[in-house]
Amino acid sequence: MKVLTFGEMMLRLKPLGNNRIIQSDVFEAAYGGAEANVAVSLSLLGNDAAYLTKLPANLLGETALSTLRKYGVDTANVLRGGNRLGIYFFEKGASVRSTNVVYDRAGSAFAEARQTEFDWPTIFSDVDYFYFSGITPAISAELEQAVTAACQYCQQHDIPVVCDMNYRGKMWSPERAQAVMSTLMNYVTLCIANDEDFEATLGIKAFDGDMSRGIDQIDAFKEGMLEVTRRYPGCKMVASVLRNIRSVEDSQWMGLLLSDGQFHETNRYNVHVMEGVAAGDAFGAGLMHSLLHQFDHQEAINFAIAASVLKLTISGDLNLVQESDIRAVMKKGGGASLSR
Amino acid sequence: MKVLTFGEMMLRLKPLGNNRIIQSDVFEAAYGGAEANVAVSLSLLGNDAAYLTKLPANLLGETALSTLRKYGVDTANVLRGGNRLGIYFFEKGASVRSTNVVYDRAGSAFAEARQTEFDWPTIFSDVDYFYFSGITPAISAELEQAVTAACQYCQQHDIPVVCDMNYRGKMWSPERAQAVMSTLMNYVTLCIANDEDFEATLGIKAFDGDMSRGIDQIDAFKEGMLEVTRRYPGCKMVASVLRNIRSVEDSQWMGLLLSDGQFHETNRYNVHVMEGVAAGDAFGAGLMHSLLHQFDHQEAINFAIAASVLKLTISGDLNLVQESDIRAVMKKGGGASLSR
Amino acid sequence: MKVLTFGEMMLRLKPLGNNRIIQSDVFEAAYGGAEANVAVSLSLLGNDAAYLTKLPANLLGETALSTLRKYGVDTANVLRGGNRLGIYFFEKGASVRSTNVVYDRAGSAFAEARQTEFDWPTIFSDVDYFYFSGITPAISAELEQAVTAACQYCQQHDIPVVCDMNYRGKMWSPERAQAVMSTLMNYVTLCIANDEDFEATLGIKAFDGDMSRGIDQIDAFKEGMLEVTRRYPGCKMVASVLRNIRSVEDSQWMGLLLSDGQFHETNRYNVHVMEGVAAGDAFGAGLMHSLLHQFDHQEAINFAIAASVLKLTISGDLNLVQESDIRAVMKKGGGASLSR
Amino acid sequence: MKVLTFGEMMLRLKPLGNNRIIQSDVFEAAYGGAEANVAVSLSLLGNDAAYLTKLPANLLGETALSTLRKYGVDTANVLRGGNRLGIYFFEKGASVRSTNVVYDRAGSAFAEARQTEFDWPTIFSDVDYFYFSGITPAISAELEQAVTAACQYCQQHDIPVVCDMNYRGKMWSPERAQAVMSTLMNYVTLCIANDEDFEATLGIKAFDGDMSRGIDQIDAFKEGMLEVTRRYPGCKMVASVLRNIRSVEDSQWMGLLLSDGQFHETNRYNVHVMEGVAAGDAFGAGLMHSLLHQFDHQEAINFAIAASVLKLTISGDLNLVQESDIRAVMKKGGGASLSR
Amino acid sequence: MKVLTFGEMMLRLKPLGNNRIIQSDVFEAAYGGAEANVAVSLSLLGNDAAYLTKLPANLLGETALSTLRKYGVDTANVLRGGNRLGIYFFEKGASVRSTNVVYDRAGSAFAEARQTEFDWPTIFSDVDYFYFSGITPAISAELEQAVTAACQYCQQHDIPVVCDMNYRGKMWSPERAQAVMSTLMNYVTLCIANDEDFEATLGIKAFDGDMSRGIDQIDAFKEGMLEVTRRYPGCKMVASVLRNIRSVEDSQWMGLLLSDGQFHETNRYNVHVMEGVAAGDAFGAGLMHSLLHQFDHQEAINFAIAASVLKLTISGDLNLVQESDIRAVMKKGGGASLSR
Amino acid sequence: MKVLTFGEMMLRLKPLGNNRIIQSDVFEAAYGGAEANVAVSLSLLGNDAAYLTKLPANLLGETALSTLRKYGVDTANVLRGGNRLGIYFFEKGASVRSTNVVYDRAGSAFAEARQTEFDWPTIFSDVDYFYFSGITPAISAELEQAVTAACQYCQQHDIPVVCDMNYRGKMWSPERAQAVMSTLMNYVTLCIANDEDFEATLGIKAFDGDMSRGIDQIDAFKEGMLEVTRRYPGCKMVASVLRNIRSVEDSQWMGLLLSDGQFHETNRYNVHVMEGVAAGDAFGAGLMHSLLHQFDHQEAINFAIAASVLKLTISGDLNLVQESDIRAVMKKGGGASLSR
Repeated sequence: MKVLTFGEMMLRLKPLGNNRIIQSDVFEAAYGGAEANVAVSLSLLGNDAAYLTKLPANLLGETALSTLRKYGVDTANVLRGGNRLGIYFFEKGASVRSTNVVYDRAGSAFAEARQTEFDWPTIFSDVDYFYFSGITPAISAELEQAVTAACQYCQQHDIPVVCDMNYRGKMWSPERAQAVMSTLMNYVTLCIANDEDFEATLGIKAFDGDMSRGIDQIDAFKEGMLEVTRRYPGCKMVASVLRNIRSVEDSQWMGLLLSDGQFHETNRYNVHVMEGVAAGDAFGAGLMHSLLHQFDHQEAINFAIAASVLKLTISGDLNLVQESDIRAVMKKGGGASLSR
Repeated sequence: MKVLTFGEMMLRLKPLGNNRIIQSDVFEAAYGGAEANVAVSLSLLGNDAAYLTKLPANLLGETALSTLRKYGVDTANVLRGGNRLGIYFFEKGASVRSTNVVYDRAGSAFAEARQTEFDWPTIFSDVDYFYFSGITPAISAELEQAVTAACQYCQQHDIPVVCDMNYRGKMWSPERAQAVMSTLMNYVTLCIANDEDFEATLGIKAFDGDMSRGIDQIDAFKEGMLEVTRRYPGCKMVASVLRNIRSVEDSQWMGLLLSDGQFHETNRYNVHVMEGVAAGDAFGAGLMHSLLHQFDHQEAINFAIAASVLKLTISGDLNLVQESDIRAVMKKGGGASLSR
Repeated sequence: MKVLTFGEMMLRLKPLGNNRIIQSDVFEAAYGGAEANVAVSLSLLGNDAAYLTKLPANLLGETALSTLRKYGVDTANVLRGGNRLGIYFFEKGASVRSTNVVYDRAGSAFAEARQTEFDWPTIFSDVDYFYFSGITPAISAELEQAVTAACQYCQQHDIPVVCDMNYRGKMWSPERAQAVMSTLMNYVTLCIANDEDFEATLGIKAFDGDMSRGIDQIDAFKEGMLEVTRRYPGCKMVASVLRNIRSVEDSQWMGLLLSDGQFHETNRYNVHVMEGVAAGDAFGAGLMHSLLHQFDHQEAINFAIAASVLKLTISGDLNLVQESDIRAVMKKGGGASLSR
Repeated sequence: MKVLTFGEMMLRLKPLGNNRIIQSDVFEAAYGGAEANVAVSLSLLGNDAAYLTKLPANLLGETALSTLRKYGVDTANVLRGGNRLGIYFFEKGASVRSTNVVYDRAGSAFAEARQTEFDWPTIFSDVDYFYFSGITPAISAELEQAVTAACQYCQQHDIPVVCDMNYRGKMWSPERAQAVMSTLMNYVTLCIANDEDFEATLGIKAFDGDMSRGIDQIDAFKEGMLEVTRRYPGCKMVASVLRNIRSVEDSQWMGLLLSDGQFHETNRYNVHVMEGVAAGDAFGAGLMHSLLHQFDHQEAINFAIAASVLKLTISGDLNLVQESDIRAVMKKGGGASLSR
Repeated sequence: MKVLTFGEMMLRLKPLGNNRIIQSDVFEAAYGGAEANVAVSLSLLGNDAAYLTKLPANLLGETALSTLRKYGVDTANVLRGGNRLGIYFFEKGASVRSTNVVYDRAGSAFAEARQTEFDWPTIFSDVDYFYFSGITPAISAELEQAVTAACQYCQQHDIPVVCDMNYRGKMWSPERAQAVMSTLMNYVTLCIANDEDFEATLGIKAFDGDMSRGIDQIDAFKEGMLEVTRRYPGCKMVASVLRNIRSVEDSQWMGLLLSDGQFHETNRYNVHVMEGVAAGDAFGAGLMHSLLHQFDHQEAINFAIAASVLKLTISGDLNLVQESDIRAVMKKGGGASLSR
Repeated sequence: MKVLTFGEMMLRLKPLGNNRIIQSDVFEAAYGGAEANVAVSLSLLGNDAAYLTKLPANLLGETALSTLRKYGVDTANVLRGGNRLGIYFFEKGASVRSTNVVYDRAGSAFAEARQTEFDWPTIFSDVDYFYFSGITPAISAELEQAVTAACQYCQQHDIPVVCDMNYRGKMWSPERAQAVMSTLMNYVTLCIANDEDFEATLGIKAFDGDMSRGIDQIDAFKEGMLEVTRRYPGCKMVASVLRNIRSVEDSQWMGLLLSDGQFHETNRYNVHVMEGVAAGDAFGAGLMHSLLHQFDHQEAINFAIAASVLKLTISGDLNLVQESDIRAVMKKGGGASLSR
């Protein structure tokens, strides 16, 4: 069973520790991106994962590519060319200071890729699942068309489509997002939507925007998830991460899955967050892994949320854990013991 | 509106992370000092800020000076000469282990400066506010005289004087502090006093010394603040940071302002402290900024305490934040969101 | 009063921060081992401490030796020779992710040492106390014989023997551990046993294995400790660290001492753990220091637990603190104040 | 006497040491650019130096700006706005491996600036010298127009114009360069041209392209320099750095100045190059400093080449030296002594 | 055309810069090994390269494996299991101080692998060339048998065998080396032998042991190479790197190839060595690449020596260069220019 | 045979690599001092070495002390107290840029020590050799008296006195140096004098001050050395390091020993200098080691100069080498080989 993910990979530059950019003469470099993160995680969990993107034919594109290869991702169809690798600067927050991102992604090789560069029949020749997030169609009209073409191909060839709505307010407006995503949702089998995603990308109210009490709004989430399945009958499953975020370090997390009309909730995890990024991608990968291995629904959402909170303890965009690490978290007291 | 601050700038040497000196072969270098920190913060908030000190005419003095310039502080009147830059070694604590400071400041260029080196009419020619802390007169008798002369000049020329009492038990005794500060207070318009400052520098009991329950003693603080205004009628405002400190990382903070006989309290902030230094200077700068921009009293103290708790998330002595960062903290849930 | 400790010293290699090995191109190097840690701590507390081990005659053995010397440990009897220094790789956990250790200690100089290499009469010529942990006899049959010979020598020469049971499930089974330790316990005057040690090394049930509620089982611990003294009448004191561990960072710690049939309990410490290793060795050293200086029993256990929780704030295996640091923790609010 | 320099400032990202990008998870960050480097150097040499550019209104633009301020450059007229700060990745070569640069500068705030944004009468109000390099007009047609307008303003107001030809083959072709530079040269008083600059920007043959024997071609250089003054009578001085480069580390450098028809040559310096960038900017700044302080012609070129070779020992783009450092190099054996 | 290389991969731990182990609390980690280096280099040059070894099923084995994958090496047949990854500690020399290596490789997964674990028909199913070095049979008798079996398989299936003699005096004696290698040489088509290799592994005198004048002994080398072809008629090509090493940094290098009875010599390279390891593996990979692409003999040796001296500028064991980098070195003055 | 050395130990703070202070936010910390360096080197060479100084009773003094212990130096008589540890900032030069030192040593514990604090009979109770350098009496009049008292004690008890003249122009004038040293020389048995030492401390002309051609002046050195023995008949041996220093990295070194009226010269070493400090102390230690082990005179000076040039490859003040390392350099081509 092979999964293909499709999206943009960027260079992340981060000052050491919690430093601000203005006081930094060193940046840590990491390479990632929502769909790349999912592919890497699936590969580290033992699955066959391929990634599709376009990377510049320079040393930075080569390095991004080598990162994917390092973790076992199939990069055979990655396009090379274009002008640059997108970059983002990442100031890790602390306590009352929010994490801050400066994007420098305009003009990237992927952003300027043409839809005609993607030869879907070849790309999908041995693919069993297709995964993308809302970021990909948000990047450009060409990529929106490319995603649509991919989804259509999948529909025609019975390849299930998984989509993490992943709304990015710096990339498009709710209006444009809804126009695009409401169409794409017709191809989606499993939809992942968190927090503001419901309203921003689907126009469905499920969360009031207060990140400090997402879990407290679980009923509204459930109603929103049901509405998703009502509007998009092909969408059989909807999954969410719910969070009460009290500060940069301190939060509670739980998973919620609607499947075949049934809700499955996980325990709440109290987490001390080391780096609050890409936990959604880890969740998505955990869920995909559960699908690929036919975990039952409760185990599936348990596995996904454990993968997600584990990511909060890993630096960089990639969830560098194996299945045994996730299983350890799923057991009570996973964080407590030192095995020696 | 231009603010002048007057004090000593030192080199801070800190082992990496929470390491102890004995296990360190690397020190992080940072340059700061109470009044320099205030000047930098005011400048970063968009104000015209000048700093007065004396720095040695060597590469270390040059580097301290360049730090001030980097953040836009006017250093035109900084004196150069003398023997050395004061140094302090800083072991950051953790949990039950307190932060530990080894001072090596004797014989510094500033400590050995003569009062006659400061030409106040020139220095104050375009200054609208004067700021100093109790550290400056504690350094030497010459500097005590210099501060006094500056205050007298300010009184004669209607330049308001702001003083953070900033008691340092390693520098002088309560007796000497009270002898000096009780005189200087006659020139002060806005007095900042925290914790032990009331008793050690003014002989006014307002806090019992238990840092784990400063907020709990708010009534005693209020009584102490009122007593300050009774004793020093020229002092129109008294401001304090109140804290319940449970461990090196874990504390609650709030601000309290007495102004025109009215008290203004802020919310309590639960903070996970990254580096517990110079938060008082950030508070002073926040308050000064509020004065310069004529925020109302409640907004002023709200702004000041938000600036202060934000400093707890920044490494080094300088509060490297802009007004928008402080405003984000002032809103509920400031620490929770990642804007992307 | 001179203490001799006997055990293995290893090189610890740790990725920076909380990084995983797969993402690390740098390792921090530290040298330690249970009994070496005790010797260093005793030396830093001002005691005369000697350490006995065997180190390879290469640059790594030399560096391990120099670490001991740096902290004042008497290394005059350390043997040199053999093939290699044992190594372990250490991934520091975070939040829900447990700390992870990869051992690479087989074939070390110490593991392959012969019992006949240790000339006990010479080694013990000026020694007043002997300290070892259960790790030493677990390493090899030769070392088990060496420890036995050392204990017999001590018994014959009235040198009190202190043993930290220190069960390591990766090194031996409970069956083998019990066979060996139940014999060695006949020589032991002061026994330190934590958590699983009671059952794994002595076959005495005192703890149900749930690290999140060790303190909650204090009554079972007490019963276990009494049973130890019943079985081994020569063992006059039994000491334990009890913990409620909620996550990698968040735990409560307390000490418990049974001495002359009386129990002495300490306060509970809430600690934010920086590095959760070698706190047991710090506890043992604190207890030894208390014995050497004849602290009363309550002060002894108070001192030991304060030393132990302080270690949780120090990186590396060695408890790099002085008596004044421990005394500061013993006072209420030790973690709160910054002395300046 | 105030100098204005005009050009682009970029973020330079460099792997540690001589590492390649593909093996780097850390980049050193430095901010610079040909004309910014000149302004910083002039300021550090004690001159009044202003810099004109456009920087984005984000944290990276702020950091670039703070770098200029740190070294005392007047940034009052720097424009803020646009999309991004230009970046270049820098792999430092070694021995037979050339230094390698990956540019990522398209779409920068400066590259997209409009000529109308530069208000020359205000900008030049207190300026005595104008300095730019051939990079600035190479960036865009708008900037070419801006430079032309600036030069015309200077001509009308008797402000001498200094230009370092600074040909960059990755930015424009010799044809376009010659079309533009041959016009701009009509405004130039002092022209700096090295190596390929003569031919690529002026169509004058003075060097055969073999970097290993630039000094050996001194006669051709002289002929080229004379031709420059023949073609552009307003150009009173032409200066060059001549080099025999044997490897990344190993080279010989000398300066050559044509002034009032006379040639002035310096000694040859054997240099062990630490970082072979921005030495031309250091040369230009050294020459400007000589002009500002009216050094005689021989001293001027001696000073400039010493400044230039000194830059080869400094990491980053900025020549962080003072006049005394340059004077020490000018003396024989400058590199040999340790003053203590 | 696919190449298989077979050997051991180890973790290299190196103090920063030129530090000694005793002064280091940080080690840089790199993964490599003679045959792994060749496989990585071939892959980076665009070839299909597979690597065969056995790695432990722990995080270190995983990391070694991920390094191979990162650079595109086919690891499908790598065995997992055994106890540990071999380690070596590497003190980089400087000037008169030689580089120093402390091996800690005993008991590694590969060293304890059984010959029966290697299923040659499967492993060689799509392989066109086989490469190993003398290190592999030196590790154990089992591996000697494994190499022999592999060679026999190659002989039977017309797969050319390439061997770098790579004598390691710390691993076996000349007597044992000669006994083994003289047999294996009967299968070898292309033999690479440097310096002491001729005598130590083949008993052929070609070099007197003075590394400061290897090039000066070129005639003796030629005689030795001819003798190799006389003794082993199946060996059609013999290649060597000749060096005059004056100090750790300073040396001259040239290549020499005997092919079809003809000698092909390269120019001499003066190199400033950054890290003098694995240059022989880079040479071997360069030669293999030349074979795979049917370069003529002179170009082949030119390419190989350029690849080799380029490695001296790269840190770590792997020659992280592309063909264009090698071509740049092959041109005169490759180290001199900065392309921008 | 035990050697006592007597002098000041300081903290050295050095920017990374060749960085300048103004661009550094990190300093490497190392502890050393001329006589401490000699003691450490003697200890590492296997000798019994004691060190006498006064260190402050704070964490920096403790760390300096622990450095001595780490390398096996006997610190039993080190005094504790006083105000501070002396510091110096060290900018490592490169090529034409000289190394630059900023001293911050005034007011150190040692500089303010009183001569009466040194109890010579106790200190010398088991000492066989006494070593000091001219730095010690240069620090203060009290220390000059202390050194004199020590020398007198040695004379009375037949303890040979070794002195490295070690002139420091930043500490005293030639006049004061000569007044003091000409007296102390009456107690000295072995005198080490380099470069300017002859003239500055003894008023004997032996070197013209041109560091680029010290070796070229060997005859003048010889004459100066003879003059030393003529003036001070008790001084049986005079030793010098002669250097031709061409740049920071590039120099030639040789040793010269006058003993019993005979001169012994070493070969010249071409060295690529990594860090040009404390090579004189390494030379002194090498010579002392030769004396202690009764090497013949030629071997003694050969050993000393090899130790000295080896130090040029070690970072920090301490010559972290063993006798085998020095012996390897003594052999021809020591820098060339890699043993593996």
